[in-house]
Amino acid sequence: MTTSKTISPSATRLLPLTWRVGPSERATLAPERLVPAQVPGAVQLDWGRAHCFPEYWRSDHFKAYQGLEDLFWSYCSVLDLPTLVGDERMFFVCGGVDYRFRVSIAGTVVHEQEGMFTPFEIDLTGRAESGDVLEILLYPAPKAFGEAVGRAQARLSNKPPVSYGWDFHPRLIPLGIWQETGIQVRARVHLRSVDVRYQLAEDFAHAELTISAETSDAPGTALEYRLRDPEGQLALHFQTENAVLERPRLWWPAGEGHPDLYTLEVLLDGVIVHSQRVGFRRVRLVMRAAAWQEPAGFPKSRSEPAITLEVNGRVIFARGSNWVCPEIFPGLITTETYRPLLELARAAHFNLLRTWGGAIINKEAFYEICDELGLLVWTEFHLACNLYDGEGEYLRVLDQESRSIIRRVRQHASLAIWCGGNELFNAWSGMTDQSFALRLLNKNCYELDRDTPFIATAPLGGMAHGDYRFRDERGRELFEIFGQARNTAYSEFGCPGPSAVDCLESFMPEGELFPPRPGTAWETHHGLRAWEMDPRTWLCQDTIEHYFGPTQTLEQLVERGQLLQAEGYKFIFEEARRQKPVCAMALNWCFNEPWPSAANNNIVSWPHRPKPAYYAVQAACRPVLVSARVEKFAWCSGEVFEAEIWILNESVDTVHSGSVEVELDVAGQLMQLARFDFPDLAPKVNHRGATVRGVLPDGGVRTFDLNLRVAQRAELDSRYTYVSRPRAAAVPEHTAQLDS
Amino acid sequence: MTTSKTISPSATRLLPLTWRVGPSERATLAPERLVPAQVPGAVQLDWGRAHCFPEYWRSDHFKAYQGLEDLFWSYCSVLDLPTLVGDERMFFVCGGVDYRFRVSIAGTVVHEQEGMFTPFEIDLTGRAESGDVLEILLYPAPKAFGEAVGRAQARLSNKPPVSYGWDFHPRLIPLGIWQETGIQVRARVHLRSVDVRYQLAEDFAHAELTISAETSDAPGTALEYRLRDPEGQLALHFQTENAVLERPRLWWPAGEGHPDLYTLEVLLDGVIVHSQRVGFRRVRLVMRAAAWQEPAGFPKSRSEPAITLEVNGRVIFARGSNWVCPEIFPGLITTETYRPLLELARAAHFNLLRTWGGAIINKEAFYEICDELGLLVWTEFHLACNLYDGEGEYLRVLDQESRSIIRRVRQHASLAIWCGGNELFNAWSGMTDQSFALRLLNKNCYELDRDTPFIATAPLGGMAHGDYRFRDERGRELFEIFGQARNTAYSEFGCPGPSAVDCLESFMPEGELFPPRPGTAWETHHGLRAWEMDPRTWLCQDTIEHYFGPTQTLEQLVERGQLLQAEGYKFIFEEARRQKPVCAMALNWCFNEPWPSAANNNIVSWPHRPKPAYYAVQAACRPVLVSARVEKFAWCSGEVFEAEIWILNESVDTVHSGSVEVELDVAGQLMQLARFDFPDLAPKVNHRGATVRGVLPDGGVRTFDLNLRVAQRAELDSRYTYVSRPRAAAVPEHTAQLDS
Repeated sequence: MTTSKTISPSATRLLPLTWRVGPSERATLAPERLVPAQVPGAVQLDWGRAHCFPEYWRSDHFKAYQGLEDLFWSYCSVLDLPTLVGDERMFFVCGGVDYRFRVSIAGTVVHEQEGMFTPFEIDLTGRAESGDVLEILLYPAPKAFGEAVGRAQARLSNKPPVSYGWDFHPRLIPLGIWQETGIQVRARVHLRSVDVRYQLAEDFAHAELTISAETSDAPGTALEYRLRDPEGQLALHFQTENAVLERPRLWWPAGEGHPDLYTLEVLLDGVIVHSQRVGFRRVRLVMRAAAWQEPAGFPKSRSEPAITLEVNGRVIFARGSNWVCPEIFPGLITTETYRPLLELARAAHFNLLRTWGGAIINKEAFYEICDELGLLVWTEFHLACNLYDGEGEYLRVLDQESRSIIRRVRQHASLAIWCGGNELFNAWSGMTDQSFALRLLNKNCYELDRDTPFIATAPLGGMAHGDYRFRDERGRELFEIFGQARNTAYSEFGCPGPSAVDCLESFMPEGELFPPRPGTAWETHHGLRAWEMDPRTWLCQDTIEHYFGPTQTLEQLVERGQLLQAEGYKFIFEEARRQKPVCAMALNWCFNEPWPSAANNNIVSWPHRPKPAYYAVQAACRPVLVSARVEKFAWCSGEVFEAEIWILNESVDTVHSGSVEVELDVAGQLMQLARFDFPDLAPKVNHRGATVRGVLPDGGVRTFDLNLRVAQRAELDSRYTYVSRPRAAAVPEHTAQLDS
Repeated sequence: MTTSKTISPSATRLLPLTWRVGPSERATLAPERLVPAQVPGAVQLDWGRAHCFPEYWRSDHFKAYQGLEDLFWSYCSVLDLPTLVGDERMFFVCGGVDYRFRVSIAGTVVHEQEGMFTPFEIDLTGRAESGDVLEILLYPAPKAFGEAVGRAQARLSNKPPVSYGWDFHPRLIPLGIWQETGIQVRARVHLRSVDVRYQLAEDFAHAELTISAETSDAPGTALEYRLRDPEGQLALHFQTENAVLERPRLWWPAGEGHPDLYTLEVLLDGVIVHSQRVGFRRVRLVMRAAAWQEPAGFPKSRSEPAITLEVNGRVIFARGSNWVCPEIFPGLITTETYRPLLELARAAHFNLLRTWGGAIINKEAFYEICDELGLLVWTEFHLACNLYDGEGEYLRVLDQESRSIIRRVRQHASLAIWCGGNELFNAWSGMTDQSFALRLLNKNCYELDRDTPFIATAPLGGMAHGDYRFRDERGRELFEIFGQARNTAYSEFGCPGPSAVDCLESFMPEGELFPPRPGTAWETHHGLRAWEMDPRTWLCQDTIEHYFGPTQTLEQLVERGQLLQAEGYKFIFEEARRQKPVCAMALNWCFNEPWPSAANNNIVSWPHRPKPAYYAVQAACRPVLVSARVEKFAWCSGEVFEAEIWILNESVDTVHSGSVEVELDVAGQLMQLARFDFPDLAPKVNHRGATVRGVLPDGGVRTFDLNLRVAQRAELDSRYTYVSRPRAAAVPEHTAQLDS
C-alpha cells in the first residue's frame, strides 16, 4: 500500500491535517504530553513553542534545543476525513519525514522507513475512518556509536551531517515532518507519477521526448500530452509515450541566453491532471583547451578530470557560489525562503550554484526558481567530510534515497552536475575511488540520469578548495595565494567578513558586542574558534588589525572586516577569470547562511541580506569589466604601485574596442597612471591590457583606491581599495592607526 | 533457446564437430569454396593452410593474411549427432566466436550475437538431426567508418584493438571460433550454471558462502554441495545455497604464503556434475602510508587515488609485468600456451600480472594457473588507447560482454583488480571520467563483483606510464628519469632489447639480419619505427652505439642491446622498490609477446623463451636482495664512482643482520669499495645502507661490474654492469670502440 514513486506535484489539492507531537523515552511508550505541531516543521520548534523556549537563533539559545533529538517523537493526528463520492479513493501523502519513522493507523503499523528524501503515500480507502489516529513515530536522530560529538556521528546514516555542527552552523539536529503532508482525494483512475526524459540531437535540431506516466489503472488508460512552448502556444499534442519536438528552443543559463521553459500538460480523460516545466539543454563536462597536452614527458600520469562546463555546445566559465542550507530547520523552508536568495544570486551574474553536500537536497521550489532564473545547479548528495563506509543497511538506504533524489531532480533544466559529496577524497574524510557509497551513487546516476555529468566529490585532481582567509598563518595574502595557484576549478574559496552592526545587534546580547571575546555569541555564532584550523576565524580580528591597527569600535571593526572581505572576493573571482581557460569555475564559499553569524565567509546574511562583499562579487562577475591584477593589498608610501589591467569578457557578443583610464585616488589626491586602448574582443575572450605603475605619495596608514574607467561605458568601470602604510614598514603590527 | 549464462566448465564431455569454412563477399552469398577448419582457430589460419600461405610469423608473410577480415566467413558443419537415450537432451555449446555472427540450423537462423566474450548454447533436441548443416556466419571485422587504418578502427566495437596494429603486434585481425565448441548430451535435468560467491569476515574468522546454481529443471531440484579443503578433506557438506566456513585457509599470492585452494563439488541426484576451485582472499586498494597528508596547503586538491594492494589485510608491494596476448590468434591459445609463461612469471618472483586492455580477456586456463601459482591478476577490459564514445549499440554490446567477463572471472582467487582499459585518460585516447563506457563498466563491476577494486584506467593520478627507453631523445637515462620520479605505481615502464640471434634467424631472411635496415623484417617485427614517438625503437641502435661505439656484428648488437635492457630493468624495478611506500607497484611493459619480435620491451620471447633481461628482473624481484642505487650508466676513467647500497626486503619474515661487501671489477681489476653491516630488518622494511665511492681507473671504452655480496648468503648477492669511457669524454658519439 505504499510507494516511493515520484508524487505528482500538481495532483489534486492536499488537505492539511491537524497534528500534535510529543516525546517519549522509548518507542513502546506513548508520549506523556502532546503539543500542537506545525507541519512541515520540526519537533524541536513545536516543543520550544509550547514551552516558551527563547528563539534558537539569538545568543546561545540554540543550546536549549539540544538533546531533544535523542528522544522518540510521536506525531498524532485524529483523522477528520472527507466523504468520498462514488469510487473515489483517499490517500495520505507525505513528501518527507526526517529521519527514521514508522506510520500507524489506529495502532496498526502501515509503513516503516529510514531516510528523509523519499516521499511516500498510503491508500486510506476502506482502511481508515474519521476518529482514527494516524501516528508517525520518529526514532531518535542517528548517531554513530563511539564517535565523538560532531559530524562523524552522521557517518553511518543518510542524515545531512551539517546539523551535527559545522564552522558556520550550530549543533542542532532537526527531526520532524519537513515536507508537505496531508490527505488527497483522487478519482479511482488517477495519475500516480510522471517522468519526462528527452534526448537532444547532437546538433540540437530536435528533441526526442519520452514520457513515462503511471496511473492507478491497468496500463492503457487514455493519457494525452500537450507540450506548450514558452509563450504558451501548443507545440506538440500526442497520445503515445514518445514524441519528437523539432527545433526546440533551448534553455540557456544566465548570461548565455534565455532560460526558455516549455510546459508539459498531462490529460486524463481530457482533463489536465498534471503540468510541469521542461527545459531543453545539454550539459557536459569537457576538457579545457590544451588540457590534453598535459602532463608532458615521462613518466606520464593521466590528464586531469574534465571540469569545464559546456552548455548547449558552448563552453562557459562558471561563476557562482556554494549554496548552504538557508535554515537550520529544513521544515521552515518555503518558496519565500528561496526566492529572494536566488534572485540575489541571479543579480550577482551567477550562472552556477553548488548545493553543498553537507546539507539537504533542496526542495522542489529551489529547482523551479533556478529553472526560471537560468541558474545551473551542481547538486551534491548528502555526504560531506566523513568516512561513509557503512555496509548493508547504510548502502540500502543510500540506494533508496539517491534514487528518489535523482528521479525528482533530473526533471529540472537547471540540474548541471551530480556530485557524490563534499571533500570526500581528503584526509578529513578518508574515502577513496573504491568507496562503495560513491560507486553506488555513480551507478544510480548512470542508470537514472546518465546524460548529467557525475563527479564523485569535489575537489577532484586539478580542482581546489580554499584558502578561506584574507591572510594565512604564514602571512601570505590571498592575492599571492591565488595569483600563483593554477587550478582547473575553484569549487570553494573563502574570505570571511563580519555581519552588519544591526545584524549583530539583532542576536547578540548588548554586553557581548564589543570587543569580541571568547565565550560570547561571537564564539557560538562563528566569529571566533569557528574553524579548528584557525581559532581566529571567522572574524580574523588579527588580520584586520594587521592592516589597520587597533580597533576602537564595533562599527570600525565591521567596516574594516567587510572591506577586506569585499576586496578579497573581488580579487579571487577576477583572478580565476584571468586564469581561463586553465580555470573554468569560481565558486566562493559560501553564498548564504542558516542563521545569523557573527562573522562568516558568506556574502548574503540570513535570511537574505547582502553584505558589502555581495556587491563586490556582483561587480567581479559582470560579464564584461575592466579588472586589475595586483600583487598585494598592503603598500608603502613611496613604493611603486603596479597593476596589470585586463578586460574580462564572458559576453556572448563581441565587445567593442574602447579606451581605459587608470587612476589612483590617494586621500583625494588623484593620480592618472595611464590610458590605453583595447581592440574589439571576440565573445568570451579576455584581453590582457597594460601594466601601469605609479609612486605612492607619503602619508600614514590609509586606504587608497584604484579607479578603472572605460570612456562612455561606465558599466565596465571598476574600483579597488588597498591600504598604504608609512615607508620603511617601521610600523609594528597592531599599533598603527588608520587615517580617518 | 539460447543463453548467455556461464556454462558449467565441467559439464559432460564436449563432442567435437567437423567444420569447413569459406569466405564470401556478401552475407547472402554462399561461399564458393569451403576448406577444412580447425576449431578453435581462426579463418585466416584455415584459409592460409588450405592455400599454402607461408607462416604468418616469418618475415613479412603476415601481410598475405591481411584483408581476409573484410569478408564474410561461413563455418559449416554437417551434423553427425549421437543418439539420445530416454529423455536426454542435446546442446550445441560454444565458448566464443570472434566477432559478430549468426547461427543457423538447416537454413533457419537460431542465434545472432555481437561480441566474442559471451558464450552461448543452443538446445538442439528435436530441432536438428544428423545431416543438417549447422552454420556460423561471421561478419567482417568491425572497422569504424572514416578512421585511418589502425587501432582507431576498433573504437566503436568490442573487438580488442591490438590486432589493428600496435608497436609490438602486426596488423592482423583474427576472425573465427576461438573457444571450445561442440555437442553436449545432457540428462533432462542438468546443471546450467554455477556461481560461487563468498563474504570473508573482516577478521577472516569465517567465510559466508553463497552458491547460485541453476538447473534445467524447476527450482528445487535436489542439489548438494561439498567443499573440500586444499588436501581434499571434506570441509563442508550442505544442501542450501548458503553455508559458513569457519577459519578458512586463505589464498595468498606468491611470496606471501601458500595459494590455498578449496574445491567445491556440485552434486545432482548424488552425482558430481561440476567441480571448481575456490580460493578465499580479500583484495583491497588502500592509501599508502602518509598519503592523506598530501597535498599540503591551500588551495588544496584531492589526495591521490588508492593504488596500494592489500591482500588478506597485508599491504604488499606489487612486482610484476604487463601480460599481452601470447598469440596473434587467440584461437591458438591453450593451457600449454599459458603454463610455461606463467611458470616463468612465478619464477621471477612476480606477484601481479596486468592483463593489458588492448587484448582479449584471457581464457579460463590462464586464471586457473594463476590461481594455482599465486599470481594476482589485474584484469583489464578490452579497451585501449581509443576514444570509445559510441552510443546505443556499442554500449549494449559492452554491457553484455562485460557482464559475461565479470561473471566468469570473478570466480577466481587470482583476480585482484578490474580496470576499464589502458591509458584512456590520456591525450591519445581522449576519454574522461564522464565517458559512458567507463561508467558502465564501473556499474557492472559494482553490481556483480563489488568487493574487487575497480579503476577506470591506468594511469590514474599519481600513477605513471613510461618512459620506454634506456635513454630518451634529450639524452636522459632511465637512471635519472626514474631516480627523480615520485609516483604511486609504475603500471608500465619499458626498456627495449633485441631478440636472441637464433630467434632473429628463425623468422628473418638471412640477408636482412645485419645491419638492421628499414624496409626489412627489422621494421615489420618492431625493431625500427615501431613506436611513432621514436622511429629508432625498439632496437635503439643509436643508444647502443652511443655507449659502445659502432656495431660490427649481429651478435655484438644483440649482446649490447640485451645488456642495456637487463641493466635498465634491474634499475627501475629496484628503484621502484626503494621508493616504497610512496610507490607500491612496479610492472614492466611487457612480459611476453604474440609473435617473434626483432626488438621489444618484453622479457620473454615468443613463445616462452626468456631474454637476458628476464633473469635481471628475476634478480631484482627477489624478496630480499642487496641493491645499488646509481645515478647513471656511463662513467669516465678517473671519475669517482658512487653507489648507494640498500637492502630491499619484501620478506614476510625478519631478515637477519648481516655484512655487505662492495667491490668493483674493472677489466678484472678488483677494487674493494666498502664493507658495512646491516641490522635485523622487520618484514617488508627496506634498509638504506652505505653510500660507497671509488675512483675508476684509466682505460678505453669498457664495461665494469659492481658486485655486492652478503657474507654466507649468496642468494642476496647482486651484480650490476656499467660502462666506462676515457676521461675528458673526448670520444665523439658512435666512434669509440669497446675494448673486447
